Amino acid sequence: MKVNGQHFRTIELASDAWRVNIIDQTRLPHSLDIVTLDCVGDAAHAIRDMQVRGAPLIGATAAYGLALAMHSDPSDAYLDSSIRMLKDTRPTAVNLHNELARMGNALRREIPEARRDAAYRYAAEVCASDADNNREIGEHGLGVLRNLASQHPNRALNIMTHCNAGALATVDWGTALAPVYVAKEAGIHCHVWVSETRPRNQGAHLTAWELKQMGVDHTLVVDNACGHLMQSGQVDICIVGTDRTNLNGDVCNKIGTYLKALAANASAVPFYVALPGSTLDTNASHSADFPIEFRDASEVTDVIGKNDRSDLHSVRITPDNTPACNPAFDVTPAALISGLITERGICAASRPALLALYPEYS
Amino acid sequence: MKVNGQHFRTIELASDAWRVNIIDQTRLPHSLDIVTLDCVGDAAHAIRDMQVRGAPLIGATAAYGLALAMHSDPSDAYLDSSIRMLKDTRPTAVNLHNELARMGNALRREIPEARRDAAYRYAAEVCASDADNNREIGEHGLGVLRNLASQHPNRALNIMTHCNAGALATVDWGTALAPVYVAKEAGIHCHVWVSETRPRNQGAHLTAWELKQMGVDHTLVVDNACGHLMQSGQVDICIVGTDRTNLNGDVCNKIGTYLKALAANASAVPFYVALPGSTLDTNASHSADFPIEFRDASEVTDVIGKNDRSDLHSVRITPDNTPACNPAFDVTPAALISGLITERGICAASRPALLALYPEYS
Repeated sequence: MKVNGQHFRTIELASDAWRVNIIDQTRLPHSLDIVTLDCVGDAAHAIRDMQVRGAPLIGATAAYGLALAMHSDPSDAYLDSSIRMLKDTRPTAVNLHNELARMGNALRREIPEARRDAAYRYAAEVCASDADNNREIGEHGLGVLRNLASQHPNRALNIMTHCNAGALATVDWGTALAPVYVAKEAGIHCHVWVSETRPRNQGAHLTAWELKQMGVDHTLVVDNACGHLMQSGQVDICIVGTDRTNLNGDVCNKIGTYLKALAANASAVPFYVALPGSTLDTNASHSADFPIEFRDASEVTDVIGKNDRSDLHSVRITPDNTPACNPAFDVTPAALISGLITERGICAASRPALLALYPEYS
Repeated sequence: MKVNGQHFRTIELASDAWRVNIIDQTRLPHSLDIVTLDCVGDAAHAIRDMQVRGAPLIGATAAYGLALAMHSDPSDAYLDSSIRMLKDTRPTAVNLHNELARMGNALRREIPEARRDAAYRYAAEVCASDADNNREIGEHGLGVLRNLASQHPNRALNIMTHCNAGALATVDWGTALAPVYVAKEAGIHCHVWVSETRPRNQGAHLTAWELKQMGVDHTLVVDNACGHLMQSGQVDICIVGTDRTNLNGDVCNKIGTYLKALAANASAVPFYVALPGSTLDTNASHSADFPIEFRDASEVTDVIGKNDRSDLHSVRITPDNTPACNPAFDVTPAALISGLITERGICAASRPALLALYPEYS
């Protein structure tokens, strides 16, 4: 991605080549703060408090978290407790759990003295592979966008997204937004409807900021407006990300995704999910098996923004002591999904189609 | 309704018996400020800036606005310009336009000297009739709630609503919440899912406050969560209000209503609209004829709440200069509606059923 015109990745090694720099995404869009992670505890904190978020970036941060752990203590005991600490941060994004399981197995096969270098190598591979896969998602998605744009040659293509499944949710390129960036390179005029994505406002905070940095036309709307926009013919396609996908093609993504899928279906708007293979959950056979994270009620009752002195500030929008409930994800059944855009190509949201692309899960 | 245990109406004559007291609803839930309207300009301002809102209360405020106009100048010219000023405040709520047309016709038939008293009498009748009709909506809705509650005798009945269609949206009782209040009187344990209703947060600001005052159990959720709650069996019924309804039974209500109706249908949750006859628009034959109000983008980009010093405060949640679009209403097609709860009984959302209850519009 580009930030102030410079190439930028969301997670990178610091200049000392062992500590890890991330953007504190809780401060965006109001301030661009780089935070340096010194230890596995810093990485766990960054994931839990959503300084980093988005399934792919959570996975990458966990991988570097384990590298930081091995830097300080490569013993079996510390490896195990570090994996547990990182796993406990967030339940829904499957990348976190997949990366930790794979990396844990790989590191246990090494002698302790070799684990530090192996862990940094592994984490760098996770990051490189995420960026490459997302670029591939963009290339495959380009075909869909090019086809739709050719039907409306005299106006911008209207793409709706939800939450932030852009570069900020990944190491680079993004998932749902990768096709938009590749289409822009290919000269297709795209306009993105950004839904604010209550309660954490990732659309308003992150996607609006990212699209501005990338020079892509966009308009912010409240989540409630998305049905009206589709019903009134103002949306050509929806593309969203996913935190966990089962092999039937059911998608667990940021709360509110399901409502967009319902509205898209009611108005015959194509509804695509950008699906990095890393978000496949090969254990969940039924959508009821998806673990839905419930976050603190204060995320619903209190809103963070910039006040007139440019300070970050929290305001309460409810009466004191109003009870609130805060499920962070919902499930979109495969039947509502037009297609999955993966790094290996586009397929239907169905078991046969997914297994044809990912035969290793057969 | 009750406020701090005392009986209370949202609009009443001041102690001098000619000025008009309202609650400034832009200050709720943080402070209960009574504002006195002195002239028709005050009434227009109160409607435009949403110190009063909700289709029935907008109609009642417009009626008293015209009474204030006649108090200061009962001439034909001032009557006409006052009607125009009040009409121009908000386009979607049909009560405003209906009440002004009816009242204007009635007042023009009077000689100027008789108009002041006639106008106050008319406005008082509008208010009394609204409160009576809403109580009737509550009685008719009770049957639906009692039936559902009998299927779940060991737990609270879970009712989802949207925006505020409670007492605060009317003169008294509310429309969508009237059945809840009557059911509570009848000993039915109700729990209300309050959706915050971005961008103006009427759920978080007003419905949460009103239900607390009325002693009804409730939980606030973001609008995005409503699909998940219905999908996971946590909602027994949805009841919403309406700002304008055509004779086919299509409903134009607060933005986001349509998404709830889609989700209710997908999960077989009954979806009812509380419909005071005053919200019928006998001129709109097609849902595309509904005038959808677009409000200022700052309602999307800036959020008002209470800061830690208990001051009301606005914070910006977006990058500076983010373009935003703010449609205030959407259309729910009749096909998604289980039934209309009117002051004359419950009917299907269809032309024959509506005309059977309201034969005067045949």
